[in-house]
Amino acid sequence: MPNHPYYPLDANVVGYQPNETPVLELLLSAGGACTVLLGVTFALASYVRPRLQLADRIAILWFVLSGSLHCFFEGYFMIHHDHMASAQDLFGQLWKEYALSDSRYMTSDTLVLCMETMTVLLWGPLCFVVAYLTATRDSLRHPIQVIVCMSHLYGDTLYYATSLFDEYVHGRPYSRPEPYYFWLYYFLMNFIWIVVPALDYLYQSISTISAAFKRLELGPKKTN
Amino acid sequence: MPNHPYYPLDANVVGYQPNETPVLELLLSAGGACTVLLGVTFALASYVRPRLQLADRIAILWFVLSGSLHCFFEGYFMIHHDHMASAQDLFGQLWKEYALSDSRYMTSDTLVLCMETMTVLLWGPLCFVVAYLTATRDSLRHPIQVIVCMSHLYGDTLYYATSLFDEYVHGRPYSRPEPYYFWLYYFLMNFIWIVVPALDYLYQSISTISAAFKRLELGPKKTN
Repeated sequence: MPNHPYYPLDANVVGYQPNETPVLELLLSAGGACTVLLGVTFALASYVRPRLQLADRIAILWFVLSGSLHCFFEGYFMIHHDHMASAQDLFGQLWKEYALSDSRYMTSDTLVLCMETMTVLLWGPLCFVVAYLTATRDSLRHPIQVIVCMSHLYGDTLYYATSLFDEYVHGRPYSRPEPYYFWLYYFLMNFIWIVVPALDYLYQSISTISAAFKRLELGPKKTN
Repeated sequence: MPNHPYYPLDANVVGYQPNETPVLELLLSAGGACTVLLGVTFALASYVRPRLQLADRIAILWFVLSGSLHCFFEGYFMIHHDHMASAQDLFGQLWKEYALSDSRYMTSDTLVLCMETMTVLLWGPLCFVVAYLTATRDSLRHPIQVIVCMSHLYGDTLYYATSLFDEYVHGRPYSRPEPYYFWLYYFLMNFIWIVVPALDYLYQSISTISAAFKRLELGPKKTN
């Protein structure tokens, strides 16, 4: 029997120590931190840009939340990936709880570590850039927003695809068998970063850019 | 000793058969096919859209070439990934030659197969869409062009990162040790899909979109 709760049972998880904080307390701490972050961001955006539309304020919340998770929570993994299983601080325990749905975060898996490093160094900072460009109504907002949405869609799709492929083709599941972990942690928490970018911000940017070109008649010229 | 020329020496390459066609003949065939494709595309674009700017014709060449490689050459890998090492047709022999610089194409590697499947099903068709939108000067050209460029940049960066990580951290090189394979096949052939998207088309789209918003004064409004 392995000395850790992760799947597959032969996953090379080094130095596992059970979490010292109860799960509910961990999740409430994370939820509380996100709520404070969103509240402060909303208040700050409303104070600095009082006439900003509600949709733009919500966009700022989305990109500040995404950027914070990328730079800080995923940054924690990037830095501590080789001794994740023994951590007892808040982020470490949260990762150990999440990894019950994907043990690749406990084994310095090549794909997950490389993808997370790109996320921390590139897409996280770009999320904050989009929030700033939204607040200042900059002309660069929508092209950069397309880039950030694409990074979410590409990364998440590949993240899903690789672990499902390993599970169903190679018979190596990374999630514990309880449906709670697979569906709530692995599926739902990541699915948010497919639905919101695709249905909200990518669609919004594409249609806004297209409308701008149409208005400029740079689009379908009649010269050909 | 393994019964194949790929690295690492213990790579699980099934049913390897040496190529029957000389390398030079393979490369000339591939180069010839690309030349014909580009020539026909250029002639067709010039015939259908005689007043299209040269830069737009070259963009069409780039996206038709990329789309063809994605849909057909990489599509071959997606379909035949589990018996690549014994192939003797043109595409199969070309893949066997290329895989000397990255054996993951001979072992149904999870990351490479999932990424290639996304490329074949999503980014390949979108390349043709961008070529069409360029020819018709459609208002959707630039947002879709940003998406396609991002798929190239994201995919290529992750492709580089994962194999270099496995080589330098896990001591598992996927390329043969001769510099020719690493630098010409693995580095240069993929680097094209970083340089051209980033320096040409992503930059072009971002600046064109930004300029459009500035002209519409949808950008930095003075209402806040």
